[in-house]
Amino acid sequence: MAQDTTKQTYVNELGRHADKDVVLKGWLYNRRSSGKIQFLLVRDGTGVVQCVFQKGDVSDELFEELDHLPQESSLTVSGTVREDKRAPGGYELTLKGAQVLSKAQEYPITKKEHGPGFLLEHRHLWLRSSKQHALLRIRSRLVGAIYDFFFDGGYTLVDTPILTPAACEGTTTLFEVDYFGEPAFLTQSGQLYNEAAAAAFGRVFCFGPTFRAEKSKTRRHLTEFWMVEPEVAYMELEGLQELAEDCVSHIVAEVVRNCEKELGVLERDIEPLRKISPPFPRITYTEAVDMLKKKGHDFEWGGDFGAPDETALGESFEKPVMVTNFPAGIKAFYMKRDPEDPRTALCLDVLAPEGYGEIIGGSQREDDIEALQERIREHNLPEESFRWFVDIRRYGSFPHSGFGLGLERTLAWIAGIEHVRECIPFPRMLYKIYP
Amino acid sequence: MAQDTTKQTYVNELGRHADKDVVLKGWLYNRRSSGKIQFLLVRDGTGVVQCVFQKGDVSDELFEELDHLPQESSLTVSGTVREDKRAPGGYELTLKGAQVLSKAQEYPITKKEHGPGFLLEHRHLWLRSSKQHALLRIRSRLVGAIYDFFFDGGYTLVDTPILTPAACEGTTTLFEVDYFGEPAFLTQSGQLYNEAAAAAFGRVFCFGPTFRAEKSKTRRHLTEFWMVEPEVAYMELEGLQELAEDCVSHIVAEVVRNCEKELGVLERDIEPLRKISPPFPRITYTEAVDMLKKKGHDFEWGGDFGAPDETALGESFEKPVMVTNFPAGIKAFYMKRDPEDPRTALCLDVLAPEGYGEIIGGSQREDDIEALQERIREHNLPEESFRWFVDIRRYGSFPHSGFGLGLERTLAWIAGIEHVRECIPFPRMLYKIYP
Repeated sequence: MAQDTTKQTYVNELGRHADKDVVLKGWLYNRRSSGKIQFLLVRDGTGVVQCVFQKGDVSDELFEELDHLPQESSLTVSGTVREDKRAPGGYELTLKGAQVLSKAQEYPITKKEHGPGFLLEHRHLWLRSSKQHALLRIRSRLVGAIYDFFFDGGYTLVDTPILTPAACEGTTTLFEVDYFGEPAFLTQSGQLYNEAAAAAFGRVFCFGPTFRAEKSKTRRHLTEFWMVEPEVAYMELEGLQELAEDCVSHIVAEVVRNCEKELGVLERDIEPLRKISPPFPRITYTEAVDMLKKKGHDFEWGGDFGAPDETALGESFEKPVMVTNFPAGIKAFYMKRDPEDPRTALCLDVLAPEGYGEIIGGSQREDDIEALQERIREHNLPEESFRWFVDIRRYGSFPHSGFGLGLERTLAWIAGIEHVRECIPFPRMLYKIYP
Repeated sequence: MAQDTTKQTYVNELGRHADKDVVLKGWLYNRRSSGKIQFLLVRDGTGVVQCVFQKGDVSDELFEELDHLPQESSLTVSGTVREDKRAPGGYELTLKGAQVLSKAQEYPITKKEHGPGFLLEHRHLWLRSSKQHALLRIRSRLVGAIYDFFFDGGYTLVDTPILTPAACEGTTTLFEVDYFGEPAFLTQSGQLYNEAAAAAFGRVFCFGPTFRAEKSKTRRHLTEFWMVEPEVAYMELEGLQELAEDCVSHIVAEVVRNCEKELGVLERDIEPLRKISPPFPRITYTEAVDMLKKKGHDFEWGGDFGAPDETALGESFEKPVMVTNFPAGIKAFYMKRDPEDPRTALCLDVLAPEGYGEIIGGSQREDDIEALQERIREHNLPEESFRWFVDIRRYGSFPHSGFGLGLERTLAWIAGIEHVRECIPFPRMLYKIYP
């Protein structure tokens, strides 16, 4: 492969170089040619630029080479930046020279329709396609907005462990790891550790990969997904709802503000996103059940919502709806019971609008040591493994609350993507771990 | 436990409330009393404030309760903020009222010396101690500085998977996971996936937990640790060195600028940190071997540096030293050989000063498809698992480079901590996975 060491300009910086000569380095994305004039579309990861040249502008040999260059070949192009309102990005390049670095073999992803199996098998290449590129650029910005929200809000990032000795929510959906001959499990949530951290730092969050060995093949399930989880000392359920609506509103606004181009590539109607601001509607689980019954759903008080129920509830509101006070029996052991209705927990689910389902689950935590110990016994959890967790109530117990926001589900909603598998660079699903 | 819903002010905001009445919520950190006057030190995660009151300022009953309140009890205090230059943070609270929320049991961590085993067993409480608190506050700021550096530099965050089908660097140090009946492994590095992402996005980084099942019990080893890994299309080794020195200089400067108080708690001399700016010294492995021999180390060309070697080399410079061109045989299969000296790889290790050892490892990547396939065979790696990785060279190969910066080792250096186990909230080490 030919090497090249000239200074590189990126496509998204061309506006700063109007009428100047630059060197771009990238890959051939598409090409048109009419015998005497060629239009090369070159992408470099930050954008795509059209490079225009005629016979005579470059050597006949190079003209010929470029006229037959396969898609995704890597190349360096040099030329003059010209403003052109019709061009995507507003600029094109009058090409003066080019150097092919590596001629690609026939590229497997073509303009024809490919099935999802084929595309997932070629995920390492599929990332280069314009829609996947746009979607994952939004993901990157969304993550940045999440960090900004919590850092600017005075939160301390406290990374929680991936390898854990005990299960947070049941044991049937855990991935087991051989830890030097002993069983360990991949974390399902950083929450228990967050609670210890909140006692040390007040307001904390963790943000990392979490794992569920669920044998589900729905469009909302991944076995490995990212979750951001704030936990706040001295915060009760009311404060948690304010935090959730502030957080969601902030990150949606940041994406809308910074990712107009990418949302356009995905043909996402952003008008519904512009309506996302506090306050969000608040209903109880009991009210939600009544709504579902009125909509004709066959649903009894006490059960958990399925995807069609979440979709129906979410579609009833223009903003994310916050559902509180689920039956305690279907929720995690660490959630505090509502003293005014002990059948229910002081918990919170946030359902996205437009049918995208649950994006947040959270609660006020049980801070009474005896109540917590009773729950641990009721759930047949190993008391020894939870000794440290109970300690948080032994040494200065305090009201506290937190939630988990699923990154991929939130991205699916914001970007208008039907299946979460596209919302993570390298999805892991049931039996699916390549590439 | 008594509940309380008044608006909370944080200790680190007291400067904005001078001479005003506020409510703080936190834990009793320490107490002095002289019969008629009490001084309570209350911590709330953002800082510690001294609360002063005399007999008669509160009810006799409350005065008595506070006078016997155990350390780490949770409480609400209200009073007037007074500027006091002698107070830590510059403010103290003239206490007017207090409410004990939960009286702590006898706190296991006391002023006497505890062994590391005891402290690690109580890590969930140890986090509350001033030094651990300061250290992990610095970690949080360090992570924020890393995100800022890459986002501001135009990098796209592309999260790489934790669950992987293949090993990146050898198979002896992998944690195996039961993935629905098939073996999978916890990632040791996101690099291979970063290379695919760089072809799609140009400049990318991943930042997440990585795993090494090493049976090492040194002060530099964790089985689970965090690593940030940039990868840049069309960047060669020279550019990688510039990126490394820019990145390290930026994050050190940000910590020094934002964490003066925390570095003070840790008694870290920050003068050596102020010297960290580009350019960093650059030497080759061969020059490093000569240096070691002159220092009396028993070392032969071809071997890898041990911790004492890294320490000796790092101590020879005031800034991190960049060592390039290690023997290819001791480096990973994906590193590009130096065309001018094919015994060596175009690789880069960065060794911290003051004896803290390696903080960065990176390289230019092999971009010749045939050379890469030959290496995969030489290393007896499963060709089928690396098919997608080879594809990156099949469809528009391009020069590219990247590195991994170990978060805990970098934090150990910046904060002046001897053992990396304190540099992560919940350390995982050989046989150690609780809490």
